[in-house]
Amino acid sequence: MAVKLDPPDPAALHPVAGVRLGVAQAGIRKPGRDDLCVLLLDAGTLVAGVFTRNRFCAAPVQVCLEHLGAQQCATVRALVVNTGCANAGTGVDGLLAARRTCVDLAALLHVQPGAVLPFSTGVILEPLPVERLGAALPAALDDARDDNWARAAGAIMTTDTVPKAASVQVAIDGVTVTVTGMAKGAGMIRPNMATMLGFIATDARVAPALLAQLVREVADASFNCITVDGDTSTNDSLVIAASGHSALGLISDAHSAQAAALRDALVAVARQLAQAIVRDGEGATKFITLRVEGARSVDEARRVGYAVAHSPLVKTAFFASDPNLGRILAAVGYSGVDDLDVRGVDLYLGDVHVATRGGRHPRYAEADGQRVMAQPEIDVRIALGRGDAAATLWTCDLSHDYVSINADYRS
Amino acid sequence: MAVKLDPPDPAALHPVAGVRLGVAQAGIRKPGRDDLCVLLLDAGTLVAGVFTRNRFCAAPVQVCLEHLGAQQCATVRALVVNTGCANAGTGVDGLLAARRTCVDLAALLHVQPGAVLPFSTGVILEPLPVERLGAALPAALDDARDDNWARAAGAIMTTDTVPKAASVQVAIDGVTVTVTGMAKGAGMIRPNMATMLGFIATDARVAPALLAQLVREVADASFNCITVDGDTSTNDSLVIAASGHSALGLISDAHSAQAAALRDALVAVARQLAQAIVRDGEGATKFITLRVEGARSVDEARRVGYAVAHSPLVKTAFFASDPNLGRILAAVGYSGVDDLDVRGVDLYLGDVHVATRGGRHPRYAEADGQRVMAQPEIDVRIALGRGDAAATLWTCDLSHDYVSINADYRS
Repeated sequence: MAVKLDPPDPAALHPVAGVRLGVAQAGIRKPGRDDLCVLLLDAGTLVAGVFTRNRFCAAPVQVCLEHLGAQQCATVRALVVNTGCANAGTGVDGLLAARRTCVDLAALLHVQPGAVLPFSTGVILEPLPVERLGAALPAALDDARDDNWARAAGAIMTTDTVPKAASVQVAIDGVTVTVTGMAKGAGMIRPNMATMLGFIATDARVAPALLAQLVREVADASFNCITVDGDTSTNDSLVIAASGHSALGLISDAHSAQAAALRDALVAVARQLAQAIVRDGEGATKFITLRVEGARSVDEARRVGYAVAHSPLVKTAFFASDPNLGRILAAVGYSGVDDLDVRGVDLYLGDVHVATRGGRHPRYAEADGQRVMAQPEIDVRIALGRGDAAATLWTCDLSHDYVSINADYRS
Repeated sequence: MAVKLDPPDPAALHPVAGVRLGVAQAGIRKPGRDDLCVLLLDAGTLVAGVFTRNRFCAAPVQVCLEHLGAQQCATVRALVVNTGCANAGTGVDGLLAARRTCVDLAALLHVQPGAVLPFSTGVILEPLPVERLGAALPAALDDARDDNWARAAGAIMTTDTVPKAASVQVAIDGVTVTVTGMAKGAGMIRPNMATMLGFIATDARVAPALLAQLVREVADASFNCITVDGDTSTNDSLVIAASGHSALGLISDAHSAQAAALRDALVAVARQLAQAIVRDGEGATKFITLRVEGARSVDEARRVGYAVAHSPLVKTAFFASDPNLGRILAAVGYSGVDDLDVRGVDLYLGDVHVATRGGRHPRYAEADGQRVMAQPEIDVRIALGRGDAAATLWTCDLSHDYVSINADYRS
């Protein structure tokens, strides 16, 4: 049961000129469900990506890195996504399977295998049934349409309960530019570079160096600010495809007003997708915005934020709507800021000032904490009192359903 | 329901000459249960301790550090332990409360307040009801006996379901030396210096510098190798008290056979207590021994081990007895060993070779993984293939009961 998250309205997802999406049932893990998705990109579409830093980087991620080259940005003709099997921890056979998928799809499209990017999500340490995947590719191609984002978002889900897609249109120099994206993910979510899996497309025309920079900036402002369970996936991938079909001229200067407007639009879509992943976090009943300020550096603020966001004790207290807020202070204390003077630390829960100078606020009343904890969306603010840097993370609680979902995931 | 953990047999807990224990009901958080414990130490007893590195270090820990002085080793006449309130995140008032407890007990014993060490465990961010604690001290003193370890171990429990105490006797130079200890802890367990709370006493006579060294070595070989939920407590404390009542002469040379024999006895008791904490971990249904070998350093081996031990996905798979072992590889991959070559990594579950060179072992059959996962005690071995260093950690699974216990802890 996701926290205040509705399925996307298909009519609100603007097609992106030059991008068509198709869905099929390949029976990767179980028959009878959409588990294969292709994104077909018109010639000239530039794609940039950021990928997991997990050293057990999945085979498809390794192939993506290869195909995108040193700049992590290249012209690409198709993305192919399967669920049900992560093709990670699969050694050389896994790499062969990922490459074979690219070859199969490239043959159908009459393009080079290097112009195809493969993506997988599902169980780790299982072989990818590459024959079944290849056999379903023609059906996915037949299904391809530019207004198919909502169905595609459904086809890439694993333990997600709600498809995740978002879309904005902005006017840049009087020209309408479209940004539409989709993502999946509910568990094994603590993106290091990006989350498993995010696909964003725009019709803007963007220079390769700028697109490669934008995808990193967008990831840092969205997917790299969320965590469900602290488990960085082997398959995290975020790609942005720019088809260049918009009438707007080429954007190449990172400091231009056009680049800023495009960046804002991309971040808006990416944040909506990233927050949707948290709202649909496995078993989530609360959506928590965690702001750490007064830190010496952004890294320090993020370190403190992640310690709080990953504490099972903090997460279960949110699940119980129990203002057992000392657990937050304990997590701040063990976050690794070795010279932290707790006498500078203040804690706020929504509009309630819970702790000041490292101790309980004299006017803090448990009823006030209780009132905020009972809400489905909760703001936590931690002021460290030692600098000017700040960071915001989004996370969820730890509930019985998280345990049930992950105890039963493969059954 | 603890994993293969029985309550200690009171008859097996050897009294330590010079150490008496008393219990009382102070009504710290709820009436009608033992929540206060004193350990009375004969004159001349030397105490050394190691304490949490959580920056939100509790008030009693701060007072212990003060009273033990720079060497963290001093002669002490009494320890006083309350449950129900951690006296952490309580600011200056908390410090005054901890000091007041020392003053009250010192007055009853006609000793200096600096000869008393206070310990607290329970809810963080709540004021310590110091009046009720003081009022119950006489009853605890009346109760003090040297054969009271089992009852004392019961009185220091919070979410523990089984009291934890252990005892050994060893002959050193033909003289019997006794080591008896007790500990509590089930959640917020990822000791940095030691776990909340461990008390070990011996009748050996030990030089201060050696005792201070021994307590660190013992902690590193026991409590610092366990984790339940990755939450380092604000109150972690391990102390060793040496009464010197044994007929054996002073032990002062760390390299002597006597020091080695005493160290072994202390480690034996401490490991038993530390493992008992994991067996009784909140909601634990599995006891997991995690060995990481082939690392470049012990720190690296421990980093990998903790990543696996703290992964909610790994822990829920153990709860489900589900050999979803790719989750272990994923945790190894994100543990922070940035130059890890996964082609050197092997994974063993009990006697089953699951993965080799970073991929699924060709002869691995899921039925074999299933057989091991169904056992209540499971050995996991991860060979990194990059060095000679190794480390062993003990941890437990993450079950529905963990969520229930921590969602309801204060109610």
